[in-house]
Amino acid sequence: MADTPLIQIIIGSTRPGRIGRTVAEWFTAHAEADERFDIELIDLGEVNLPMLDEPNHPRKRRYTQEHTKRWSETIDRGDAVVWVIPEYNYALNSATKNAIDYLFHEWAGKPLGVVSYGGVSGGLRAAQQLKQVGSSLWMKTMPDIVMIPNVHSLVDDDGALQPTEIMDTSAAALLDAIAERL
Amino acid sequence: MADTPLIQIIIGSTRPGRIGRTVAEWFTAHAEADERFDIELIDLGEVNLPMLDEPNHPRKRRYTQEHTKRWSETIDRGDAVVWVIPEYNYALNSATKNAIDYLFHEWAGKPLGVVSYGGVSGGLRAAQQLKQVGSSLWMKTMPDIVMIPNVHSLVDDDGALQPTEIMDTSAAALLDAIAERL
Repeated sequence: MADTPLIQIIIGSTRPGRIGRTVAEWFTAHAEADERFDIELIDLGEVNLPMLDEPNHPRKRRYTQEHTKRWSETIDRGDAVVWVIPEYNYALNSATKNAIDYLFHEWAGKPLGVVSYGGVSGGLRAAQQLKQVGSSLWMKTMPDIVMIPNVHSLVDDDGALQPTEIMDTSAAALLDAIAERL
Repeated sequence: MADTPLIQIIIGSTRPGRIGRTVAEWFTAHAEADERFDIELIDLGEVNLPMLDEPNHPRKRRYTQEHTKRWSETIDRGDAVVWVIPEYNYALNSATKNAIDYLFHEWAGKPLGVVSYGGVSGGLRAAQQLKQVGSSLWMKTMPDIVMIPNVHSLVDDDGALQPTEIMDTSAAALLDAIAERL
């Protein structure tokens, strides 16, 4: 790669009242301070994909909808992906899975980082499902993630996330792991 | 229950070109021939839920959107659920997970049947994920499902599903299992 590699950080929750954007902003600040990467923050709430409405398997890359073509171009320009995800009913949320299922080659071969958040579980079950989905897309999945338990207790009066020490350590470890596998 | 129990058969795929409706019509004919039950076929393509847009956890049942209130009323009237589901990227599809995540109490306590379809895998990995999600909703999950491998090879020239013997056997077994657990 001649240019600085681009990490795309994707906010997987689109729910009104979500905390995902706050979490993603914390991780994005970490990543932007790292001179090894260029960073793009992608908000699925703004991408605004409808429920999967393509008739062809994405392996064929024969997209019929303008929103799919735009989404394909967006992900095509990145070199690695970090998903910031919630856990709904002990599993992946639909907005994240929907955005993934639209594409195939655009994901393949890229490092897949995961930042999951939740209550005591820290979104771990959704994170495991996401790694499993990533493996079916030939992504470079990595054992360690950034796991944020009790996320609501970490939001300060200004609405920003006050990270624990282990969050900062694991964010740095995730960026190192991505750098090694690009 | 004074009345005949109502099984709701839900088509979990909304994708253009889906085979889900064909599969669901086969299972529905089976179920309708069974005098123990009333049957309602629900097509998520017609329900047409947007990506989850409720600010409150469904445990609170404080719905803000008309489509959520309608969906809640629909599922509330049923006594058991049979999901007819595809498998996308070795996992549950987003339309199914989205429709589930809108509600909580409406699912709880009901038998959860699964009819999954796919290639050689028969949609098994999506089926396992759905049972796991069902368990987080206090649904009565059941070990055996109706699994349909190589589903496209079973569609005849009229677009109907020509079942294998094991499909008919497992459909009957699923209806028996539901009857016992209502």
